[in-house]
Amino acid sequence: MKQNVYDDPQFFAGYSELERSRAGLQAAGEWPALRAMLPPLAGVRALDLGCGFGAHCRFLREQGAGSVVGLDLSEKMLERARAASAGDAAISYVRAAIEDVDFPDASFDLVFSSLAFHYVARFDLACRAAFRLLAPGGAFVFSCEHPMFTARPEQAWHVGAGGEKLHWPVDNYCDEGPRAVSWFRDGVTKHHRTVAGIVNAVLDAGFVLRRLGEPVPSAEMVAARPAWKDEPRRPMFLLLSATKE
Amino acid sequence: MKQNVYDDPQFFAGYSELERSRAGLQAAGEWPALRAMLPPLAGVRALDLGCGFGAHCRFLREQGAGSVVGLDLSEKMLERARAASAGDAAISYVRAAIEDVDFPDASFDLVFSSLAFHYVARFDLACRAAFRLLAPGGAFVFSCEHPMFTARPEQAWHVGAGGEKLHWPVDNYCDEGPRAVSWFRDGVTKHHRTVAGIVNAVLDAGFVLRRLGEPVPSAEMVAARPAWKDEPRRPMFLLLSATKE
Repeated sequence: MKQNVYDDPQFFAGYSELERSRAGLQAAGEWPALRAMLPPLAGVRALDLGCGFGAHCRFLREQGAGSVVGLDLSEKMLERARAASAGDAAISYVRAAIEDVDFPDASFDLVFSSLAFHYVARFDLACRAAFRLLAPGGAFVFSCEHPMFTARPEQAWHVGAGGEKLHWPVDNYCDEGPRAVSWFRDGVTKHHRTVAGIVNAVLDAGFVLRRLGEPVPSAEMVAARPAWKDEPRRPMFLLLSATKE
Repeated sequence: MKQNVYDDPQFFAGYSELERSRAGLQAAGEWPALRAMLPPLAGVRALDLGCGFGAHCRFLREQGAGSVVGLDLSEKMLERARAASAGDAAISYVRAAIEDVDFPDASFDLVFSSLAFHYVARFDLACRAAFRLLAPGGAFVFSCEHPMFTARPEQAWHVGAGGEKLHWPVDNYCDEGPRAVSWFRDGVTKHHRTVAGIVNAVLDAGFVLRRLGEPVPSAEMVAARPAWKDEPRRPMFLLLSATKE
């Protein structure tokens, strides 16, 4: 169940063209909200699960993190991440699936993940691993695709005859499990979970919930990107921060 | 903003005919999940915000609660609640809006509410009141209409030409505020909030989140009520339990 669609040439080519892949964190509508959930970063030992091109790893270091480990299963993405942070010995990259993350207990002060957990079949195990890897007082901060977004494999607006977006359709929301979606290619597997399923898995791992987020792009971001004008009608992402007490 | 639609004769007549009004808790699809969130009840001092006909008040007493106060703004509902628990001096009823709840600090061990908070404009103040009214270790357990259900004032499935339910439509989810809905009469005001808005208000009041629920009727319940066959396609209710530590 360890999916590595990012090393598929067709997928990688498509993903690389995304605005957030080219322009970085500034082009991600949810980033200001996710950034606001991060703990003070000075000196922290951070782990980024599903680090992709390493943009968050570099950000964490710029903000004062003492060391950052980026973990990803895609060799193509890690190559680019390594090139972008060459010269900073405090950032290291590990090729592994999130499901196989393995470091000594209490090795980190922050476990972070951006838009990777919806690819993971056993989110409960990822939460337990994050809890084990964190030192007391450590923070677990992540984003994933919103359950309203992953419920239907179509992941698309219900449109009228002229293509106008009428509303966001939800179905089979309570039926947690894999969805075969088309994203740059057919047969990409995303794992749908309910909001309650996500939150309760975090609580069951031992965490104290600190904040939940369902951000949409700000009016300024929408003004700069007219294509985003319908984004505030439903959240595409769920954000969560929790601590190990 | 203190709505008392339940004393409107047309609304009251319609509401009284609901299966959950006639048959009680057993006819409420979310009740098994909500019941499972309750703390041990022996001896607890309980407050039920928006108690309606008093079914939960009587249940709490049957399960060993030492005393139960039911609060509601509807005189008609309280009349029926008082009649149903006549003879049990440990259940008392208070006519007041949830927004005006006023008891001494730490008067209760359980603050409960079933399907009332979506009528309350200032949910943040209700959470703060619940926190103040609870003794340390006390529990805050409630249900409300799910944000996916309150987002559109239509509160209805998107149906095909033959009336078949195609999917559940969501729109303006991120726009928190009042919705004028038709329920037994026009112009009933429900207050839409996002899941994150609800959870964060509970956290901001000082609570520790214990559990989130998005229950749907069980297969057995659906088998007994074929009209519910589409209910598992989206949750109608959000359930939450939290504690004051």
